Amino acid sequence: MNYDNENIFAKILRKELPSEIVFEDEKTMVIMDIMPRTDGHMLVIPKAPCRNILDATHDQLNACIATAQKISKGAMDAFKVDGITVQQFNETAGGQEVFHLHFHILPRKSGTQLRPHDGKMADSEILKAYADKIRSII
Amino acid sequence: MNYDNENIFAKILRKELPSEIVFEDEKTMVIMDIMPRTDGHMLVIPKAPCRNILDATHDQLNACIATAQKISKGAMDAFKVDGITVQQFNETAGGQEVFHLHFHILPRKSGTQLRPHDGKMADSEILKAYADKIRSII
Repeated sequence: MNYDNENIFAKILRKELPSEIVFEDEKTMVIMDIMPRTDGHMLVIPKAPCRNILDATHDQLNACIATAQKISKGAMDAFKVDGITVQQFNETAGGQEVFHLHFHILPRKSGTQLRPHDGKMADSEILKAYADKIRSII
Repeated sequence: MNYDNENIFAKILRKELPSEIVFEDEKTMVIMDIMPRTDGHMLVIPKAPCRNILDATHDQLNACIATAQKISKGAMDAFKVDGITVQQFNETAGGQEVFHLHFHILPRKSGTQLRPHDGKMADSEILKAYADKIRSII
């Protein structure tokens, strides 16, 4: 399967589309999910192109999982949550909708379920407030 | 949070409990999930103790994600599936039930949903047949 340079995360990485960027290092970027399934739902993406876990390099996977750990720990503190759900989807059958590797980081409070994936967009001010909270910690 | 040496994956690693082992290397083990949510549902665990992504070392995470990639690619071929869903749960609120780090690898066919997590145990012969299939490829 090929990598499509016009996917939305590629455009966000090239700053052709706006995004609420939570964190960046040399190899990864963390953005707020605009259709959050929990409060504080974030996405970890590698800066270099790859489609998903099936074509990623070890270097991309190592960088992403290190950043996933960093923001998971940060989210526990920043959002005062009780757990973290990590999801990573590969190909359409696996749940993937944007074909640039990404790890979903879903902060969870006890007793709350994931919201349905119904395409509802979050208010950008609310996303910014969550991003500000975690940026102040990590 | 502490690591409990009596969790079931610790017992499987010590061979105190049986398991259908798919793959092993120096740092990781892959076993068939005994309550599979898709056909061929596997778990990647580190051999060294850690509770989840919140206390894992970089070395443990790198080893697990490399093995997750290896068996995801293997599952695509061995099980003739169309995608892979990866899930990784942290603390009870995050969906974790066994407190030893693990990555769920869920092979997915187009148009099929995850089965409910209802505690139904799979037949051990069926699990062995899936393990045999992927062992012959990876």
